[in-house]
Amino acid sequence: MLEELKKRVYEANLLLPKYDLVKFTWGNVSEIDEDSKIVAIKPSGVDYDKLKVDDIVLVNLDGEIVEGDKKPSSDTKTHLEIYKKFPEVKGIVHTHSPYATSWAQAGIDIPCFGTTHADYIYGDVPVLRNLTQEEIDDDYEKNTGLLIVDYMKDKEFTKTPAVLLKNHGSFVWGKDCFDAVHNSVVLEEVAKMATFTILINPNAEKTPKRVQDKHYYRKHGKNAYYGQ
Amino acid sequence: MLEELKKRVYEANLLLPKYDLVKFTWGNVSEIDEDSKIVAIKPSGVDYDKLKVDDIVLVNLDGEIVEGDKKPSSDTKTHLEIYKKFPEVKGIVHTHSPYATSWAQAGIDIPCFGTTHADYIYGDVPVLRNLTQEEIDDDYEKNTGLLIVDYMKDKEFTKTPAVLLKNHGSFVWGKDCFDAVHNSVVLEEVAKMATFTILINPNAEKTPKRVQDKHYYRKHGKNAYYGQ
Amino acid sequence: MLEELKKRVYEANLLLPKYDLVKFTWGNVSEIDEDSKIVAIKPSGVDYDKLKVDDIVLVNLDGEIVEGDKKPSSDTKTHLEIYKKFPEVKGIVHTHSPYATSWAQAGIDIPCFGTTHADYIYGDVPVLRNLTQEEIDDDYEKNTGLLIVDYMKDKEFTKTPAVLLKNHGSFVWGKDCFDAVHNSVVLEEVAKMATFTILINPNAEKTPKRVQDKHYYRKHGKNAYYGQ
Amino acid sequence: MLEELKKRVYEANLLLPKYDLVKFTWGNVSEIDEDSKIVAIKPSGVDYDKLKVDDIVLVNLDGEIVEGDKKPSSDTKTHLEIYKKFPEVKGIVHTHSPYATSWAQAGIDIPCFGTTHADYIYGDVPVLRNLTQEEIDDDYEKNTGLLIVDYMKDKEFTKTPAVLLKNHGSFVWGKDCFDAVHNSVVLEEVAKMATFTILINPNAEKTPKRVQDKHYYRKHGKNAYYGQ
Repeated sequence: MLEELKKRVYEANLLLPKYDLVKFTWGNVSEIDEDSKIVAIKPSGVDYDKLKVDDIVLVNLDGEIVEGDKKPSSDTKTHLEIYKKFPEVKGIVHTHSPYATSWAQAGIDIPCFGTTHADYIYGDVPVLRNLTQEEIDDDYEKNTGLLIVDYMKDKEFTKTPAVLLKNHGSFVWGKDCFDAVHNSVVLEEVAKMATFTILINPNAEKTPKRVQDKHYYRKHGKNAYYGQ
Repeated sequence: MLEELKKRVYEANLLLPKYDLVKFTWGNVSEIDEDSKIVAIKPSGVDYDKLKVDDIVLVNLDGEIVEGDKKPSSDTKTHLEIYKKFPEVKGIVHTHSPYATSWAQAGIDIPCFGTTHADYIYGDVPVLRNLTQEEIDDDYEKNTGLLIVDYMKDKEFTKTPAVLLKNHGSFVWGKDCFDAVHNSVVLEEVAKMATFTILINPNAEKTPKRVQDKHYYRKHGKNAYYGQ
Repeated sequence: MLEELKKRVYEANLLLPKYDLVKFTWGNVSEIDEDSKIVAIKPSGVDYDKLKVDDIVLVNLDGEIVEGDKKPSSDTKTHLEIYKKFPEVKGIVHTHSPYATSWAQAGIDIPCFGTTHADYIYGDVPVLRNLTQEEIDDDYEKNTGLLIVDYMKDKEFTKTPAVLLKNHGSFVWGKDCFDAVHNSVVLEEVAKMATFTILINPNAEKTPKRVQDKHYYRKHGKNAYYGQ
Repeated sequence: MLEELKKRVYEANLLLPKYDLVKFTWGNVSEIDEDSKIVAIKPSGVDYDKLKVDDIVLVNLDGEIVEGDKKPSSDTKTHLEIYKKFPEVKGIVHTHSPYATSWAQAGIDIPCFGTTHADYIYGDVPVLRNLTQEEIDDDYEKNTGLLIVDYMKDKEFTKTPAVLLKNHGSFVWGKDCFDAVHNSVVLEEVAKMATFTILINPNAEKTPKRVQDKHYYRKHGKNAYYGQ
């Protein structure tokens, strides 16, 4: 069932090493089928160069395996909480990509230093807090999802397609799994340039709001005129 | 018409990902035909690995499409303002290459720290200001071009082949589209080394003017003796 | 004899340039045969692209060559001291990988800044001291091994799979030679992100112990649930 | 004539882009024939991917072209001064490799921070001063060579195989052209790690002399025991 979905998620997962976002098994991509609410996700701890389409696991929103003989990603519950709350989010990516993860480890929101950032992400990329002992003991991965959902609850998912988790890595989403991977590449490039920016000028100023608005809305919304 | 021009611009655009100056669709190269004053430019938002020669758009200096079924780059008007003012400029490149963009984001002119820089660029690479709200509302891309033209008006384009735009990226030019790409690679390499230089020594001194002169004029002008 | 062991060690050595952990001949991998206590190790000063399976040298725990017509790695005695003391360690890697070596040169333990680190290494990665003149004159490579062994004596080798040597490089181990290479890649990636982390925030905080514990034990020990 | 010499120098030049030491035409390798005192060197301003064996130029120690229809490297006179003064130097490399050049631009000698450095270079890598106006006007390239020769006059070329030129780049030598390229790769790697080292710890300490001595003499001289 859902062979097309599995194939898409397989291909999107292979983009993570292609874009240098992961080493070994560190990362995962999922996508949800709009009608059946079935989620296809990478199996846990399988190397990308050994991954096969049939290794992709199908789970329902309760986290039950619907198809596949592998265990799904250990981060599956985090993905599910986001899908449950935001029906418009169709694809999710988790990585430890080095520059974005370094901002997460530094515990500092990535400032919107330029139009590369403003073209895709509206405002700074936030670092969400570590979980408490209670949240970890209760259900680490589910509570990670709830933390993200809580932050996102009053925001538009297209304007805020990425968050950082303190001392951990990033979760990034989009209108499908390939869009989520695209946003992950954007996040890493933006994080890299932000690192160099503060190295060059520790007091660098954020992009003026008028320029952020111009660039974001040049690419998004009813007045967009970028692209074909 | 102008098939040779389109082919050149197509090939010059493909050099941007080859030299790691762009990700996805972030960048564009154009060249102007001296006789007809027709400009060939990359179409807006098309991935480099899907780009075809026939996707290259031909526009006149008023920005009207002369040939092609795609929309030209959203930055076309910026290119046109430069071509209109400086007839000797024949090729223009815009990228968000990471190190050069980081200096643009930092808002600091790239100092001439060495002969790699002095060989191709005479003096520092300037960061031009953000546009005002009025300029953005009026015509963002055209006014970006006018800002560049205003800065360049009392300079030789061969000595100042590149500017940075605050919180944005670079515009670079040359005697044809390949020369403009070459100067873009120089700019990125120079920006990278300037970043490391101030990391090593925050008080690093610029190249003495006598050495800048020696290197620039060893490669340019009537007494040049570098090359064949 | 032990053809399979030599082939494994040959292949593990070739992973060092593949993962950009070494230049030229700078590094070596070994593995010990559990039954015979014979160690297979890279020959000294042989380039990876000229290395052949039959160049791999077999030595016993006294350092005597058992098979092979090449001299073993000059670091052989360091490997042997670790194998002699920790029978569960089956593979060892030495490299000068650039980020890890830079922390060794800086003389600062790599803090556990995130879950990428905590997933594989429990606590900070220590920098061990330079040897004294007496230790160098006596037996540099053997005493390097003894220094490592002394540090490790009250620790679990799986929780502390890597050490840095002041002004030198890293020694990393694992349950076989491929596991040791895997841990070397982890160390380099962790060292890279720690470098960027302190660049972004010189006062970055370590991962809270509760999160380190969660991640380490999610992957290791009887309650592990990561992977297949 | 000297076909073998030209072929060696051709191949050594191609190693510069292979090891990421140069962009475009920025660098050159030469080697001297011991008997005839003829020097083979890269032609000026020729791209590495278009370079052919027959483009390699042969010059005598007076700088006169002995064979070849191209102009030799504009840095030829610098090479010749070194060959004239140090008969044991047989190969020379000049590059603007990014990390080494950044130390040259920063104007700070590269400290011996570790054994990677001490294995090949005895002590710090010096930054030599800019030339004066008089020296530039007289003969820039020749006086650059004389500056290097003056610094080297009381040193062993094998212990000091590299210098940096302020605001410029590096000159590196060896017992033949391939050895000189090898030392250039070492210099760039050492410069990279030194950059990261001071980023991590601005007060990092140099390698103790006893460890520098141990590593240098483990690889060089009559008591060397590294390699086959």
